Formats: sequence, structure tokens, C-alpha cells
Amino acid sequence: MRPSGRTAEQVRSIKITRNYTKHAEGSVLIEFGETKVLCNATVEEGVPRFLKGQNQGWITAEYGMLPRATNTRTQREAAKGKQSGRTMEIQRLIARSLRAAVDLKVLGEYTITLDCDVIQADGGTRTASISGACVALYDALNGMVEKGVLKTNPFKGFIAAVSVGIVKNEALCDLEYIEDSNAETDMNVIMTDDGRMIEIQGTAEGEPFSHDELMTLLALAKNGISTIIEAQKTALSIAS
Amino acid sequence: MRPSGRTAEQVRSIKITRNYTKHAEGSVLIEFGETKVLCNATVEEGVPRFLKGQNQGWITAEYGMLPRATNTRTQREAAKGKQSGRTMEIQRLIARSLRAAVDLKVLGEYTITLDCDVIQADGGTRTASISGACVALYDALNGMVEKGVLKTNPFKGFIAAVSVGIVKNEALCDLEYIEDSNAETDMNVIMTDDGRMIEIQGTAEGEPFSHDELMTLLALAKNGISTIIEAQKTALSIAS
Amino acid sequence: MRPSGRTAEQVRSIKITRNYTKHAEGSVLIEFGETKVLCNATVEEGVPRFLKGQNQGWITAEYGMLPRATNTRTQREAAKGKQSGRTMEIQRLIARSLRAAVDLKVLGEYTITLDCDVIQADGGTRTASISGACVALYDALNGMVEKGVLKTNPFKGFIAAVSVGIVKNEALCDLEYIEDSNAETDMNVIMTDDGRMIEIQGTAEGEPFSHDELMTLLALAKNGISTIIEAQKTALSIAS
Amino acid sequence: MRPSGRTAEQVRSIKITRNYTKHAEGSVLIEFGETKVLCNATVEEGVPRFLKGQNQGWITAEYGMLPRATNTRTQREAAKGKQSGRTMEIQRLIARSLRAAVDLKVLGEYTITLDCDVIQADGGTRTASISGACVALYDALNGMVEKGVLKTNPFKGFIAAVSVGIVKNEALCDLEYIEDSNAETDMNVIMTDDGRMIEIQGTAEGEPFSHDELMTLLALAKNGISTIIEAQKTALSIAS
Amino acid sequence: MRPSGRTAEQVRSIKITRNYTKHAEGSVLIEFGETKVLCNATVEEGVPRFLKGQNQGWITAEYGMLPRATNTRTQREAAKGKQSGRTMEIQRLIARSLRAAVDLKVLGEYTITLDCDVIQADGGTRTASISGACVALYDALNGMVEKGVLKTNPFKGFIAAVSVGIVKNEALCDLEYIEDSNAETDMNVIMTDDGRMIEIQGTAEGEPFSHDELMTLLALAKNGISTIIEAQKTALSIAS
Amino acid sequence: MRPSGRTAEQVRSIKITRNYTKHAEGSVLIEFGETKVLCNATVEEGVPRFLKGQNQGWITAEYGMLPRATNTRTQREAAKGKQSGRTMEIQRLIARSLRAAVDLKVLGEYTITLDCDVIQADGGTRTASISGACVALYDALNGMVEKGVLKTNPFKGFIAAVSVGIVKNEALCDLEYIEDSNAETDMNVIMTDDGRMIEIQGTAEGEPFSHDELMTLLALAKNGISTIIEAQKTALSIAS
Repeated sequence: MRPSGRTAEQVRSIKITRNYTKHAEGSVLIEFGETKVLCNATVEEGVPRFLKGQNQGWITAEYGMLPRATNTRTQREAAKGKQSGRTMEIQRLIARSLRAAVDLKVLGEYTITLDCDVIQADGGTRTASISGACVALYDALNGMVEKGVLKTNPFKGFIAAVSVGIVKNEALCDLEYIEDSNAETDMNVIMTDDGRMIEIQGTAEGEPFSHDELMTLLALAKNGISTIIEAQKTALSIAS
Repeated sequence: MRPSGRTAEQVRSIKITRNYTKHAEGSVLIEFGETKVLCNATVEEGVPRFLKGQNQGWITAEYGMLPRATNTRTQREAAKGKQSGRTMEIQRLIARSLRAAVDLKVLGEYTITLDCDVIQADGGTRTASISGACVALYDALNGMVEKGVLKTNPFKGFIAAVSVGIVKNEALCDLEYIEDSNAETDMNVIMTDDGRMIEIQGTAEGEPFSHDELMTLLALAKNGISTIIEAQKTALSIAS
Repeated sequence: MRPSGRTAEQVRSIKITRNYTKHAEGSVLIEFGETKVLCNATVEEGVPRFLKGQNQGWITAEYGMLPRATNTRTQREAAKGKQSGRTMEIQRLIARSLRAAVDLKVLGEYTITLDCDVIQADGGTRTASISGACVALYDALNGMVEKGVLKTNPFKGFIAAVSVGIVKNEALCDLEYIEDSNAETDMNVIMTDDGRMIEIQGTAEGEPFSHDELMTLLALAKNGISTIIEAQKTALSIAS
Repeated sequence: MRPSGRTAEQVRSIKITRNYTKHAEGSVLIEFGETKVLCNATVEEGVPRFLKGQNQGWITAEYGMLPRATNTRTQREAAKGKQSGRTMEIQRLIARSLRAAVDLKVLGEYTITLDCDVIQADGGTRTASISGACVALYDALNGMVEKGVLKTNPFKGFIAAVSVGIVKNEALCDLEYIEDSNAETDMNVIMTDDGRMIEIQGTAEGEPFSHDELMTLLALAKNGISTIIEAQKTALSIAS
Repeated sequence: MRPSGRTAEQVRSIKITRNYTKHAEGSVLIEFGETKVLCNATVEEGVPRFLKGQNQGWITAEYGMLPRATNTRTQREAAKGKQSGRTMEIQRLIARSLRAAVDLKVLGEYTITLDCDVIQADGGTRTASISGACVALYDALNGMVEKGVLKTNPFKGFIAAVSVGIVKNEALCDLEYIEDSNAETDMNVIMTDDGRMIEIQGTAEGEPFSHDELMTLLALAKNGISTIIEAQKTALSIAS
Repeated sequence: MRPSGRTAEQVRSIKITRNYTKHAEGSVLIEFGETKVLCNATVEEGVPRFLKGQNQGWITAEYGMLPRATNTRTQREAAKGKQSGRTMEIQRLIARSLRAAVDLKVLGEYTITLDCDVIQADGGTRTASISGACVALYDALNGMVEKGVLKTNPFKGFIAAVSVGIVKNEALCDLEYIEDSNAETDMNVIMTDDGRMIEIQGTAEGEPFSHDELMTLLALAKNGISTIIEAQKTALSIAS
């Protein structure tokens, strides 16, 4: 029995609140159980220098953790004067994943920035960020179409992320903090609607893991992601 | 008539949600109309070096603005690698104000950090921060007493802050963004329950202001602060 | 009796030396008793990006403290790699105050930078900076008119700053260091020639202060500022 | 036919030079074709603060790229004043991987730092770094045993890393730069001697990849890694 | 004829004002013509970590330039967030030179910091810094003896610095800015009282310089330094 | 007898490997005994802002030390976030010296960056850097002529650098680390082919040095430099 009473394959209860703040072009509070992340999408004209004149858009992301999102207070990165390696790694992952959801050629010379700020952390903040940012991105792109800024919607399909892992020899889906910190193997999987993979990152925290374990984890991930994408669609009133 | 339909002396509707996040010793979401600030209080043992061995505690504060709390996206300070002068000025003000609410000798060698993070900005983020942080601080101190960490509660009394200003020759209380950006004179006042002043900061944005105008603004501030302190007490179920 | 033998309302002896260095367009050494600040005004063509094309000028300021201006050595900010919150707060105040002395539309697309560097500190370095910078600014603007760069002088009138405070229950004007470090309430006031206020910043260091105390302090400040403006005019050979 | 004339499953020619520099406790130049990385292992007493008193050692890593290791010059990170997100991500990966090769309890309170500096880059610098660092680490641990610093060798077994990817619909092993920059899917795999996984990071650069493609890539990786581990053992004169 | 009417071997008029500020243990304003540098010596207990327990003292130095010490405004290093290579080079030179004037064993575990801040620049700021810092150091060491902190004075003898150079084929002593910026060869020499060298740094700005030219420059430097050391002694009322 | 068995005037065995890496326009590994420095020359179009429109080129340099080039590990400057004063001083020296070898007018609006990275340090890394960078620069300039980018070769003649010093009262040429760290006087000399000086930097580490000692050191340097320039020419197959 998991601490939250879930079965091994169950994801936590997911809550997606759209239009959470009023200024952003897409603004989503996503909750995976006790993990709460605010995902804001900002649309701006222009692209970074390395893309100038290539007739395509760009998706970028920034990730932050409020100092007291965590159990004990984490030092504020703005005060320290630099982002940690972990933060950089996560925001690179978020951006890379969401770029897979968009046809950048159709987007044209616009940049969409996805700010994922963790309000409360209980494991899986990067997967919640990606899953929530996808909805914020959807709203932002839709808004561009509605305002006539874009003729065609460059959205290619829903993507979502989930963490899976092996804890005490059992493969579990959507680890919460207490599970995550005891995992022997920890894997983040980002997939599309139809079960194809965008990113897979698996790490043996202790012992190396076998090919069979990998297969079990991937199956769990696929199942969990399909539940999350359903929740995304429900929040957007889209039939699955 | 003000944009929000308020009279000149009216503060915006105030909403105070306690225990907004689960990890912090005090966690308050304060809303002044559309301005929303999350104020988390963290209790840690020990004091900064300059206070070592002086048998007293310390209150400090950090302030941040989520990049898309504002109408157009503001660059993330953690990514830029430094906090702006405005941020530093505000967090120094918050800390100084809240220290006036606590008997540091009674607190003993503990440091309380007040993290004020703006989720959505619509004017008055520093005054909302101070007013919300006071409630988070109250909860944190109470918790210390309940756990037996402190024998006596070092809380000296409620404080709150409000902005007042002259807009198109009219003195107004609790400016929202659209008013604030048109103010000729802008003043932040932090007061105690009984109308004494902790801090007053008035700035002529355009023309200098006269002694009479200052008197009018102070009267408005006093009135607004008494309403805010009432809201603090209501949130804490304390009779006024 | 104050340490310097002054009465409660007396400002320290003020000495203003113009053309203190040879390169700056305005260069003033101002001394408030033992506090000595070098205020250099630099005129440069162009304005910061946020003002481009608005047909107006800009006044900015930077503040620094030589490491051994203080009783014990203060770490050099250039070596530390960042300016402290205190420094940022002071230089923002200096710039804001001096902007009130100039008609930025008449100045046109020029930027004047006021560098205030403390050579020796004994309390009141920010008020000395503002009061000295006003004279350096005056010289710089006059120089622009003399060279034919400007047709009309954008100077709107003298401004000066003074600190007032309550020390051992007595309200005092122009605090020196030993008084300042014992003040219960500390206030910096910036006023015009005719007694109107540009900025007022009052802080209760210990107990909150009352409305009556505020009134007493403001009266002291008004009186002190009028003496300082007289000294500015004398230094510039302008009849009061 | 691949640019280098290799078959799809072939790794580039691998050259491992031990004792490449004289100061480090382990010093290896590893070459994967034209990619050359210098991997130095440094043994130091003590552990980072978060491990103090836990009777275990630590393995950490730093990664750098000489400015002209690349086709066009890359800005020097020391001059820019910060490490890029890519650098941080890679050095975290190297450290995590090598920790899996060592029994940290047996190592005791020592820290081994693996500096991987790219002398010449032609794709696969992170996998070359890990594969070379493993040999440098082996030499450093052996040295500790020889000097009597350690009684038991904490080395748990060889690990190596390889990149695999899908280029023009073909799955290839050990991508060189020209292949890597055209890959539709790019995956880095770190494995043990016996085919178990330590880390797997797969990214769809363009289209998402399918479960079947993942299986193909993993098989290629397993095969490549076994060749690399053979090369490691040959360099160390260990029978496979 | 030089711009200042000096002969080739003449140094500028030197003015040394001791006790220029009141807080520092040694405080000297040195003027070489229009170049003005404030040199403050600070005595602090303790030594840097790398000298702990070695029973010796340390001399260090920091150099700064007020933004408007120069003809056009130089950006403030504290605002930029780092010291330039030129600043670092100069402060390392000042410290190294002054260490040659002190017996660090006799000084014991004290650190003396020499802050050299350029108030006005007209060439030769580093040589003026060294020459002035020597007097400030002398005063600081004497003060330590007078207060009984030291029994023996660790001062080993006066040192001074001068710049020499070749301008339009003529060798000149103590270059002012207009000469310095046209110099073909530029050399800074630091010598003792008795003509021995502590540091010599010569640079060909355009054409390389010959052995004969070097000899001429060294003779000029020796002569100039003897004049400067005389001025140091006069300021200190020491018979030459 | 010197530790390496050399006579006082002998330089260490010099090895120059051209085309050491494949991407740079000039790439030289230079070895002075155990000191090994990789010198890469990069040619880029354009010049720094301060030279725009002056019809001339620029030579700049950057210097780095791999963390384990030294006996004990040195902290990585990219990780620390800033270059040390020593690094800045050295790279300024390298750039200044090599500029003396090139006619910048003939180079035209190109910038050549010389990256000198120390692979293994055993004294004299800065002189090896300069001597190696001269060969890399030569190759880069030749390449520009061969590709038709330049019509005339702007190379003015070979330069080289050597360290000389006084160790235990004996003047020695080309100090290795163990000698360097015991030197009473340490001097770096950069000269041309025909014995004229480009830069001379001499420092008394302990006692000041006399004019006679300087003469002896310069003679040693001249002799050593002529050997190094011979080695440069041999590597380039140029008759001396």
C-alpha cells in the first residue's frame, strides 16, 4: 500500500485550473496531489538571435521553486545570484518537451515563454510543470488564433509527463516525495497522446536496473500519461 | 469615481487565506483586489553572524515577483543573476516593518524569514506583502508557543501597510495599478493598531507636495490601515 | 547638549567646494561637519532605452562609499561583485530627488549622471549627497547653457535634504553618526526652496512614532533645509 | 554508408592513453575518433558538508570545453562568468554515472573529482567523458589501495557510455558531430559490464519515437558499450 | 618642451597630505601634478587563511577609480559587478610592492589593507598609488608601535614608484596623461631608497625598445624616485 | 646543478607540435620540459567596438589552466564564476606581446583570438603560452594569405618569452616550478628575433635586486629567447 493509498499504477488526483492569473496569455495551476505548479505562457513577438530570419518561432521555459515550496526552506536563487544546475536541467527539459508539441514553422516569428513556478512541492514538480505547461501553451496558441494573429493553430497534439520508479523492488507510477526519495530507480517519461516518446530519462539511484525493469516502468508511464492527457482534455472541454 | 467603483477612502476588498501551503510555519495568501501575494514565514534556529551571542532573534524578508505577475513579462531575477534595486528596497522595507511587530529579545536566537512572492500584481504589492506577512508571522509565532519552543509570545501587536496617493488632484487610498501609474504623489504608510507610525515613505512623482496634502494622505492611510488590521484579526478569529 | 555642541535645530557647519575635480561638468565637495561627499555631474548625449524618442532627458545617480570612509573598513563593493541593498536604495533616492529639480522636457535627449562618493562618513551621507549633487547639477546645466547646448536652463529650483530624528526623546536636526545610531526614529526629508516636499522617509527604529512627533520632525527639517539651500546659493553666489 | 565508413552498429576507433598528465591521481586522454577528452581524477580528503559524519565518500565531476574544441569558437565560460545549462547538465550526469561504479561506504571520507575537459569535439563528448573518467577513476582508486590509504578497493565494476540515435530513419551507434546534428532521435545510454542500465536519456529532436525504435536503440547501445568496456580493460591490461 | 613645461627628467610637483580622512590608521592624499589619489591604510587583526599559523603578517591592496576621475565617465565597477583586468593588475602590483617595504615576520598576525582610490586621473595613477600608500603604511605602522601593539617597527625602508617612457623618441620621466597616451614605450619602476629595484614593468606600445633605451629609462627612473622619496620624507618630517 | 641537470643558461627541451587540434586556424602544443600549453588561434571577421571603422585588426588572448594542471587541484574558474587577477594579468600580457608581432593595419578588420590553455604546469606557463601562441598566430596568418583573405602577410617577425630569475644567489634561465617557487627575483622577458624588448616584468620576491643583477638576467633572457625562436622556426621549417 502506497502512503497515499494508491495502487502501483495510479497517478495522484490531478486538478487543472485555467486562467489562474489574469495577465498571462495562458495561465494554469496544475496540482498532482500536493504538488502545485503555476504554469504561465507568455507570447512575445520576435525570436532569439540564433533563429532570426528563419521564419519560425520558438518555445522556451523557465522553472523556479518558491523558497518555501519545500519542507525546509531552500535559498532563493535570485538572492544567491545564480540558478542551480538542477533548475537549468529542468527548464531545458520543459522547453525541449513543449517544442515537440508545436509546429514552429506555423508559429512564425513569435516566442512563447513557459514560466513554471512551484508553489508547493511534493515530488514530480518537473512532470507536473510539463503537463501543466502544455495546457497553458494550448490556451496561448488558441488565443493567438482567436485574435487573428495566427491563421492556423500550430499545436500538434497533447503531451504529458510522469515520473515512474522502483521503490522497494516495486514499480510505481507518479512518485510523491516520500517515494521519490527512496527510489532505487527513477525515470521521467514524456509522451504524446498516441504513446510515442518525446523524452525518457531514467537513472539508477542505487543498483543499475535491468531491461525488464525498464519495460515495466515504460508500461506504467504510458498508462499514467494517458490519464493525465485525459485530465488536460477535460480541463479544456475537449472530447478524448 | 475610481476605476473599481470605490470611494476615495475605500480600500479594495481584502481576502486573507491562511495555511495556503503546507510546509511553511506560517503561510498566507493575501489579496488586495487583484493583487495577490503569497507570504510564507519560515522559522529557523540561529541568528545572522552580526547578532551572535546577543540573546535576541531576527526577522528578515525576501520579496519576489513571478515573471508573469505583471502585465508584460518581467525578466526572472534568478536568470538575470541579480535582484533589482526595487526588489532590494522592498524586502528591506518588509523586514524593517515586521521587526517592529516583534520583541526580538523574547524571540530568542531564532530567525524568521518572510518570503513574499507576488503571484499577480495590480498595484500595492509591497503593502499587501507587509499586511499579509504580519498574519503569517503571527501564525508562526503562535506555532512556536504551541510547540513549547517559546514560553512567551513575542508578538507586540498588529501592523499593516497601505499606499495612498494624489491622483488628478484627489487623495486616494489603496491605489491599484492604473491609479498608481498616474499618481502625482505616492506614499506608503505602515502603522500599528493604535495609529502610530512605523514607516512613512512619500514621493512626489511630479510636482512637490504640500504640508496640507501630506496631512490628508496620512488621515486616509490611518483609516485604511484600521480596515486592514480588522481583516487580519477576522482571518485569525481575533475580536477587534 | 549635542556631542557637537549644537542646539537641537542646528545643522552642522556646511562647506561647499565647487570645481573640486577638473574633468566633471559639475564637481562639488560637500561637507556636513565631518561627513564629506564628492558629487560629480556628468553630461552625456542620449537617454536610456525606455525613454528613446520621447523628447526628454534623464537624471540618474550612483552612490559609493570608499572602503575606509567608515570607522571600520567596509568591504569594497566592486571587489564583492555587487552593490548592497543600502547602496541601491540610496542611489535610487538621489536620482528621484534630483529629477524633481529639473524640467526633463527642456533638458532634451541628454542624460546627467550624478556620482556621489563618500570620502568620509559621519552620518547623513545620503542627505549630503542630495544637497551637494544639486549644486553639481546646477553647474552642469549652466555649462550646457553657456556652451549653447541648451537654449533654456531646465533647472526648476533648489532642493536639499536633511535627516531629522528622535534621540532620547528629543527631536534633533541633521544627525551625526553617534546620534543616528542611537535614534529611536530617523527621517530623511527632501524639500524645495519654498517648503514643499519631494520625498519623506521616516522609520521607527524602536517604538512607533506618533503624529505629533512627525509634526515636530517636519518642522525641524523645513528649518534645516532652508539653511542648506542658503549655503547652496552662497556657494553659487546667488542672492537668497 | 556513414561519413566515417562505419557500419550502423560500429563505434569509432577508441584510444585510451593513461597517465596523460603527471599531477592527477588518474589521468586519461580518451579519443572516440576525432573527439578527444582529457579526464583527470583528483583524490582529496574530506567530503562535502551534506555528507559530513556519514562515513562515506563522494564522487563529483566538472566538465569543460576548450573554446576552440569546436568548429567555431565557443565563448570561454570562465570569461562569461558562468557555466551554461548544458555544461551543468553534463557534469551532473558524469558524476551520477560514476557514483554507480563505486561503493561510497568503502571509499570512506574521501572526495574524488573527475575533471573532463574536451580538447577537441566531434560529437559524443559526454559519453567519451564518462567512459574515460571510469578509467581515470579506476587508476585513482588503485593508487589509494597501493598507497595503503584504502584497504579494500571500492570499485564495483566498469561502466561506459555511448550515444545512439536515429538519423534519416536509420538507427546508428556512437554518433559523430555531423550525424548528431541531423539526428531525429538522440539517446545517451550508460551501462555496466553486464548490460544493466545506469542512466538512459532519450530525446526526440523532431518527431516522437516509438517503442520499437527505443528497443532498437537500446540493443545498439548495449553492443557499443560492450566494445568500449573491452577497450577500457585492454588499456588497463585486464582480461575481459 | 613638455606640455607642463618640465624638463625630460623632472617629476611633476608632488604634494602629500597626511591624515586626509579621520578613520583610517594611515590616510594620505598624494598629488602628482593633476593626478590625485587617496591612499588609506587599514590595520586589522588576523591574516588570510593561507597564512594562518605562520607567525607573519600580510599587506594587501585594493585600487579603484571614481567614475569621473577620468576625462569621460568610466563605468563604476561596483555597478558592473566586476573589477576590470586593469584594476586587478594594478592592485596586485601595489600590494606586491609594499610587501617589499615591510618585514612580515616582525609585523606578526596583522593584515594591512591599502585602499588606493583615484579622485582625479592625469597619468601615473598606479605609481602615485604606490608612492602615497608607502606613507600611509608608514603612519599605520608607527601608530601600531605608539599604541604598543608592536614592539619593533617592521618598516624596512621607503619605496616609491615612477613611470618613465619614450615619447617621440625622447625619454621622459613621470608621464602625464597626454604623454602617456602617446608613448612608444612605457615603463613603471618601483625602487628603494638606495636604488635597488622592487619591480620593473616595461612595455613597448609600438616598436620594441633596445637595451640602450632601457638603460636611459632606468637612469631617469632612479633619479625621479629619489625626488619622490625625498617628498615622502619631508611630509613625514624625516631628514633625508 | 639544477634539478633538471641543466646549466644556468640552458632552457628546457622545447617541443612544438603544430596542428594539434583540427578546428583552429592555428593550433600548437608547446612543451617547455614538463610544462604543456595548448595554443589555439581563431580568426574571426570584425573588430571590437572601440576599433570599429579604423581600418585595422586586433589580437586578443585568453588564458586558462585546467584544474588539475597543477600539483594540487585548482578550482575551476568557470565554476567559481570569475577569472582570478593572475589569469587576467597573464592574458593581457599574452595579447599585448603578440600584438607587437603583427602589423594591425595590414591585418585589416579581423580579430585573432589566442586561447592558451595549460594542460600541465611546471613553471613558466605564461612564457610558454606566448612562445607557442606566436607559432599558432603565424600559421593562422599564413592560412589567411593562402586562402586569399589577405594579400600581404601582416606578420612582422618572431617573438618569444622566457622567465629568468635569481635562485639562491644564482641567475638562472627558464625556471621550472621548483626553482620558481624559491626565486628571490623573478623576471619575464619578451623579445624579438633581433634582441629588442617587447615587455620586461621583473619582481623582487624577497630582497630588492640591483642594477647588476638586472643586467645578468637580461643577458640570460636574450640568450634563452634566441634558442626558443630557433625552435619556433624549426617547427615551421624556416631557416634561421
